[in-house]
Amino acid sequence: MSQAPVRRLRRPSGGRDQLLETAVTEFIARGYDATSMEDLSRAAGITKSSFYHHFAGKEALLRAALERAVDGLFGVLSAPAAQEGSPSQRLRAIVAAQVRVLMTELPYVTLLLRVRGNTETERWALERRRAFDASISALVREARDAGEVRADVDPALAARLLSGLVNSIVEWYRPGRPGTASLPDDVVRAAFTGIVPAPPDHQGEPA
Amino acid sequence: MSQAPVRRLRRPSGGRDQLLETAVTEFIARGYDATSMEDLSRAAGITKSSFYHHFAGKEALLRAALERAVDGLFGVLSAPAAQEGSPSQRLRAIVAAQVRVLMTELPYVTLLLRVRGNTETERWALERRRAFDASISALVREARDAGEVRADVDPALAARLLSGLVNSIVEWYRPGRPGTASLPDDVVRAAFTGIVPAPPDHQGEPA
Repeated sequence: MSQAPVRRLRRPSGGRDQLLETAVTEFIARGYDATSMEDLSRAAGITKSSFYHHFAGKEALLRAALERAVDGLFGVLSAPAAQEGSPSQRLRAIVAAQVRVLMTELPYVTLLLRVRGNTETERWALERRRAFDASISALVREARDAGEVRADVDPALAARLLSGLVNSIVEWYRPGRPGTASLPDDVVRAAFTGIVPAPPDHQGEPA
Repeated sequence: MSQAPVRRLRRPSGGRDQLLETAVTEFIARGYDATSMEDLSRAAGITKSSFYHHFAGKEALLRAALERAVDGLFGVLSAPAAQEGSPSQRLRAIVAAQVRVLMTELPYVTLLLRVRGNTETERWALERRRAFDASISALVREARDAGEVRADVDPALAARLLSGLVNSIVEWYRPGRPGTASLPDDVVRAAFTGIVPAPPDHQGEPA
């Protein structure tokens, strides 16, 4: 079966960034393996040799696209908000910023999340994803050790579930979708207090 | 790029269920579109005509596989635990049971989650997924109206995030993975109190 429909981006006029955007859209729609440079040139409305003027080939396009997503994610970790405050404050800032990267770099992150490790570039991207998750896991452990996160939380599982929660947004979020401006905060709240939290005064079953 | 590695199941001896398992494994590894009846016969170690004796064709296999996943999910909604108790108790029971279905029917649910609606069978499966999510959304609304879930929770968003949290498990869960016996309970706790909840006595930043 083929890949998720992703909003078609406007037809590029041929700049490097726009060619990359076209390529990513095609990779997502057809799958990377099934997409040829022929397909990409046709989608971009330019000749194959013009395309090769900007990118050495298909894997170079994949690399550039995945670098954009990876740089976005690691930018989150090195941003000032991720360096300041308590571990739990940093974690909140990171989750919110990760959701914002996902929203602004949607096709690139979508592509990154579909990588399975068939080529050297894909294995590199997987390794970067693992490094990102390891940073989150370490930060959860730090927050737990500081008494800011419940003592029975397993940092590795928490990092997996956090990543699952945040990344699942690519399945349904589309730019301009109404009611999604608060999504970064909504996801932070869901991660820290629950997706379906009981009210503070609720005397029902145990949490 | 191709699909996630999924544990190879044992070579089937040719029964209908085992042929289905083989087909699902191939669909996940190669993608449905890229898999031929030839590929499936080779993977099953039987002739194409023996395969056709059990299934009318590739779409019949896809249908049978997706029905198995969909039946598992809807079985969760109709189980006694999903009918008894308060809305929030029912929701907990459903989330736990959904995780269990995902763990026991991993390849079938993985296939269901990759469906994008290219064929009639895929559109049917998508419609069933939407119906499942609508039931969850309705139950979240009921729980909120009963005062069991915080009043500012948006049921539609909560249903999406719940579904994202639960389904993300297919990305890393593999049968027999150590420490996953408690996964259904862990996911329920994450959904209701947070993936990284503050301790009850924590006087830090606001929830």
